[in-house]
Formats: sequence, C-alpha cells, structure tokens
Amino acid sequence: MNASLKKVTRADTEKMDGADPIAHLRDRFTLPEGDIYLDGNSLGALPLGVMERLERAVLKEWGQGLIRSWNDADWYPAPQRAAAAIARLIGAGADEVIVCDSTSVNLFKVLIGALRMRKDRKIIVSEIGNFPTDVYINAEAAKIMGCELRCVMPEEVEQAIEDAGENLAAVQLTHVHYKTGRVYDMAGITKRVQELGGLAIWDLAHSAGALPVDLNACNADFAIGCGYKYLNGGPGAPAFVFVAKRHIEAMNQPLPGWHGHAEPFAFTQTYKPHPGIDRMLTGTASQLATLALETALKVFEDVDMNVLRQKNMALGDLFIALAEQELGGMGFNLASPKDPKARGSQVSLTHENGYAIMQAVIARGVVGDFRAPDILRFGFAAPYVRYVDIWDAVAHIRDVMETTEWKRPEFNERRAVT
Amino acid sequence: MNASLKKVTRADTEKMDGADPIAHLRDRFTLPEGDIYLDGNSLGALPLGVMERLERAVLKEWGQGLIRSWNDADWYPAPQRAAAAIARLIGAGADEVIVCDSTSVNLFKVLIGALRMRKDRKIIVSEIGNFPTDVYINAEAAKIMGCELRCVMPEEVEQAIEDAGENLAAVQLTHVHYKTGRVYDMAGITKRVQELGGLAIWDLAHSAGALPVDLNACNADFAIGCGYKYLNGGPGAPAFVFVAKRHIEAMNQPLPGWHGHAEPFAFTQTYKPHPGIDRMLTGTASQLATLALETALKVFEDVDMNVLRQKNMALGDLFIALAEQELGGMGFNLASPKDPKARGSQVSLTHENGYAIMQAVIARGVVGDFRAPDILRFGFAAPYVRYVDIWDAVAHIRDVMETTEWKRPEFNERRAVT
Repeated sequence: MNASLKKVTRADTEKMDGADPIAHLRDRFTLPEGDIYLDGNSLGALPLGVMERLERAVLKEWGQGLIRSWNDADWYPAPQRAAAAIARLIGAGADEVIVCDSTSVNLFKVLIGALRMRKDRKIIVSEIGNFPTDVYINAEAAKIMGCELRCVMPEEVEQAIEDAGENLAAVQLTHVHYKTGRVYDMAGITKRVQELGGLAIWDLAHSAGALPVDLNACNADFAIGCGYKYLNGGPGAPAFVFVAKRHIEAMNQPLPGWHGHAEPFAFTQTYKPHPGIDRMLTGTASQLATLALETALKVFEDVDMNVLRQKNMALGDLFIALAEQELGGMGFNLASPKDPKARGSQVSLTHENGYAIMQAVIARGVVGDFRAPDILRFGFAAPYVRYVDIWDAVAHIRDVMETTEWKRPEFNERRAVT
Repeated sequence: MNASLKKVTRADTEKMDGADPIAHLRDRFTLPEGDIYLDGNSLGALPLGVMERLERAVLKEWGQGLIRSWNDADWYPAPQRAAAAIARLIGAGADEVIVCDSTSVNLFKVLIGALRMRKDRKIIVSEIGNFPTDVYINAEAAKIMGCELRCVMPEEVEQAIEDAGENLAAVQLTHVHYKTGRVYDMAGITKRVQELGGLAIWDLAHSAGALPVDLNACNADFAIGCGYKYLNGGPGAPAFVFVAKRHIEAMNQPLPGWHGHAEPFAFTQTYKPHPGIDRMLTGTASQLATLALETALKVFEDVDMNVLRQKNMALGDLFIALAEQELGGMGFNLASPKDPKARGSQVSLTHENGYAIMQAVIARGVVGDFRAPDILRFGFAAPYVRYVDIWDAVAHIRDVMETTEWKRPEFNERRAVT
C-alpha cells in the first residue's frame, strides 16, 4: 500500500453520508450507542420490530394460543413467507425458495439431490479455501455417492471444470468468498458447467442482502444461504434453499421429513414429496427463529438492491483508500480485490498480528472479526453502516497500531469464538 | 367401554389435586385463562422466564452486544447447557447429549452413523405406524447404505429382530407411540438387539420430560428427541441427540458441519470431528430457539421424574375411568393401553367422527388434537395438568356429543394443521 491518494477528511465522509440515498435505512435498526459495527457479514444488526414480533409470538401465540397458533397465528406458512421475501433479493421465484434448517444441512440436501440427477457423472468441483462446512459437506456427499471431490485453487476452478468434462456432476462454489470477499462470475461459470452437462450450486451466505443476486438470470440450478448475516435474522437464524423450478419435480433430497411431505397431516407411512419447493423441508422449524427472520426481512421491502450495492462498493472503496492513506508501513496487506465489482460487501486485511489487533480494535468499539490465520475482516452492511464510520474505524486501527495497545496481554488471549 | 365403575365426582378430582405433591409446578407456566390444555404432547406450555430470557437475548445480547455475545453472553455453549439439562431427564451423561437441528435430521445422523458401524449387516427393523418422519428417514438411510428396511406391526417387532439375526444392523423404534401412547420395553429390546450384534436407536419424542427414561440403565446405543413437547421449549424448538459414550469415538455422522469440528475456528479444509458429543453438531443453531429451550428446562431442575410419572399415569387412569363412566355408547373406543405402565403420558380415543368432535371440543377450550384417520389424542403434561381438568374435559366431550354440536359445519372444515 502507498499513501499517494488525495487525502480524505472526516468532513468529506460526512458529506458522503449527507448524499446517501439509503441513509434512512439505518433508522430501521437498533444499534449500540458509540460502536461502529463492521461485522454484519457475521451477525446482522437487530431490526426494529423483531422484539415486538417475538413478544407477540411468545406471550400471545405460544402462551395463550398454544397449539392452535399453527393455524390461527399462521405459523405453519412462516417458512414460505420468509422465503418469498428472500426470493425477491436473489432473483428467484417465491415458489423456488424455502426457509429451513442450517446452510450446511441445506447444502447436503441439494448436493445429494443434484448428484442423484447426474448419476452417471462422478466429479464434484469446488474450491480450496471455500467455507469449511461447504468443503466438509461436499466431501461427505462425494463419499456417499461414490464421487470424487476436486477442490482446486480459485484461479484453477475454470480449468478443473473443463478437465472434468462429461464426467462433471456438480460445481459447488460460494459466490462471495467469506475471507477475501472475492466474487465469482455466477453467470459465466453456471453457463459453462451446464454446457458440459453439470449442475451449479451456489452458496449465497455472503451475497444475499448485500449484492443484487439474480439466480434466474444466471440460470443457476441450486443455491443455499444464510439468514443471520446480511439478512439480519438473528444469531443462528434459519437458512434458505433455492431449487430452480425446472428441477423441483426431479429433486429427490436425502432428508425427507414430514414437513416435506405432500400431505404431512395424513401421516402416511410412504414418503410422497410435496409437488413444490416445500419438499425441501424436513422437520419442524423453530417458529421463534423463523418469525424473527421474517420480521427482519421487512427492512428490505422497498430497497433497490442496485442502490444498496452501489453504497457497499463505495464503502469498501473508501475503506481501502483510507487504509492506504493512514495505515501505510504498518504491516497490513489488502486481501480483497481492489475492483469493487469483484469484491463483495467487505474488505479484508492481513496482518501477522491480526488476532490481537482485531481484539484491540473491538475493545475500542470498532467491531470487525478475525479469521485464521491472519485476516482482519470488515463488513459493510449498507443499510446501517455510514461513510463516517469507515473514517472513524480506520482512525482507530491507526491509533491501535501507533499506541501499540494491541500488544496488551488481554488482546492476545484466544477466546472461544474468534 | 362400560359404565360399571364407581362414579367419580368433580369433588373427588379436586381432592386429588389437593393431595398432588407436584401441584405447585403449574405455577411455573403461563396458561390461558379458562382453557384446559391437553396437548402438551404436541406443543408444551410456556414456562415463566422464557420471555424475559428472550428479551435479554434480543435487546441486550443481539441488539447491543452483537457478534461479541457469542463469547460475552456465553451463546456458544448454549447447546451443551440445554443438553445437560435434558441428559438428567433421560438417564444420560451430560457428555452424551447435544441439542441441535430437528428430530428428523438428528435421526438421519445417528442412523447413518450406526449403519456405518455395522457395515456388513443389512437389515433395519422398525415399526409400521412409527411416526412418519422416522419411517421416511429410515427408508432413506436404508437406500443410501444399501440396507433393507423391515417395518412390521408392533407385535411382530420382536420376531423381526430374531429373523434378522446376524444380519441385524439397527432397530429404530419410538419409545412411546405418538398415536396410542403404547410404551416399548426399552431395556428388553435393546438387550436382545445387542445380543444379536445390532444397535438400538430410540426416539424419545413422547418420553423425554414425561417418563423417567434411563438410557444408560437400558444400555441404549443412540437416541433422539424433541424439544417442543414435554420439554416445553417452544414451537419447533431444537431437538436433541444421544450417543452412548462407548460409541462416540467411532461415530462418523453424515452431516459434518463446522460446529462439529474439533477446532471450528481454525477453519481447516479437512474435517476432524470433535472428540466428544459435539461432533453431532452441524451448522449454527438458532440462539433464540436454544436459549428458549434452555430456560424452559429449568422447570425440571428439582423435579423427581418418578413422582411426575406417577401423576401422569394417574391422570391417564382417571381419564379412562371417566370416559368409561360418561362416554359409554357414544361410539368411542380406547386406543391406548389400559395398563398405565404400558402407556405414556397420553390417552387416545378413536371415533369415526373424530376430527369434527375434536374441533368442537377445542372450541370449548379443551385443547387436545386429532391424528388421522380417527384418533382424538389427549396429553397429560403432569407439571401443569390438574385432575379437575380431566373431569372438566370429559364433561365437555360428553356435552359435545349430547348436543351434537360437533356436527356444525365449522367443525367439519379441514384446517392446514390438524
């Protein structure tokens, strides 16, 4: 990095906030006074209305309505309602998405389902450095289905797809990388995978609610994603799964539970999958978790995802410019693409003392996170992060370095969750 | 049924409540005024303290603490804490139980894990009439592992186990039947299964929190169960899974997610299972749902499960006696065992107009449920059901029949959830 850029002042960033067309979205959240929250890519902030919805769900619907609330409070179709709100954000039909289980469990369902659609093909391509759960589930599905998992470096993915050729069953990639924020070319890769006869499975954990994903424009086959990051559904919120309409009828997923049955309350002994996307359901979902997510999604109801994307690209550009301006010669390196279009809604820096530096920065109320071995990760959830927050965050990082306060013992003790 | 019993009066049941050693547990719940809730076997009532815990989790821990709460509010070990509270109720070690996912998903994990431990054996025995999800998951696991699923009538289960002989891989049964309440001999069946070299997997959905289950005294291999019935964890609460300590090291479950990894935050590309029961975890659990369940379990902290069991047997006996006394000649038949020891914490009646009758009874505030094709199901959650409730419930059922109010059109329209 170098410090050759035109100097950006705090006043400049205040002006940027003044001109921000979605600045008002910040009022839809409860945020801790004084903190700068740059970890919405790990746990989204609390939207207004969620607590009220949960209070009603617990005190009135559970406490008073009890079992009757499955009908009377419309609990039963909550996964479908939350899914419809997500579908709009990811370019899918409401009848192609359902909210349930965790991202990992949903990946297992679509991956085994995909491999069953390509029984005579034996290669799965994924990426070295993909989110660990994705790799573990890919490996497990390969084992179960007698396939070979080829995990290659990101820059080798396209070649690995060609090499697999007519033996290519599925490609499973995370659209926006969890560490670096690098964005894959969803349309291009999907197209090539399909030309070879394979199926493309996209993990949208770091895309949904941050980028204007268009699954159907990309002709994606399957996707999965997370409810607790940019969708703000709360800690461990339910995940979602997308199956392109053309594949639903043939989708034979390996976790057939009663909620995925065509007639759950007929209690038949033979599994007959629901004709639609509901076949991806398994057991009973936590209503409290699903209703919290459904309520949280109201944040996005009137939001143009292209405008939101413009803002998080600009926030990222600003962070990089300020890091170059303020943090030169301190040992940081940029781990994310400089091109904003190639970068998700985050910027990552590497530093050999990354863990301790991040703890020290968090102690100042600038909340990012650390990803082993050396990544400091800063997420820019455009609905509530301001330009001035970026300025203040970089100023704190600089101070932490200049004062060497990151060397304090308390910042060097490892905690359960990093 | 006949009406030859000594007539039981409402005053008699009031006296029974007066002598009930656990009558005070009712004060630990919020219950709807005027209703008689006999569906705790489907959705347990709301324990006091849950709303307060959720308020803190949402407003303070999520809203203010944000990502920091995984450490600072001890979110991360919540599945283990809830599991320890359940372990005490089911005769398991705290290091043999973990809370996660749904019952269906957990069954898939232990079943595939069990079949992998008995690779050279090819028969799974289960029951015709087992809870649908269990049958569907059994069938799927059999397909994946190249096994044969033999579902037989309950009275043929023991013979089917003998017939499978040294080809027996696993037996999967639900301890207390969801429709009839019939209880299997867990110790006897487990013993015989193991003599033949097989593994026994018990579904405790209708046992945990209702019967003094003793998994380790029965030498059970694996178990799964539900958090939202007698454990009162809230609608769709997370489930639990038990793996006997002797099996944990060899347990190779098919949904390896990052939370089950030995070092989740090392983000390694190779799955290395946690050395303990945590290897049964997959993705990130809903914290709101897990914390609600953890709080709900405090109801049981000082409860002697044998005393609780005495009460639910007595409630069931009373219901049967009153049904015989009051409902003779109305077309009801008893679908549950008369012997209280052979019956879980519920009594089921059959009636050809069961659906409409149950809707009419519910409209009077006596909440049981209907299970197709003809079962009226009444659950007796001993912590909050009173003897006098049983008297009043049967009186309402009699009135619904005598007035023929069940014939009203509104009670004959099918609803989404029955």
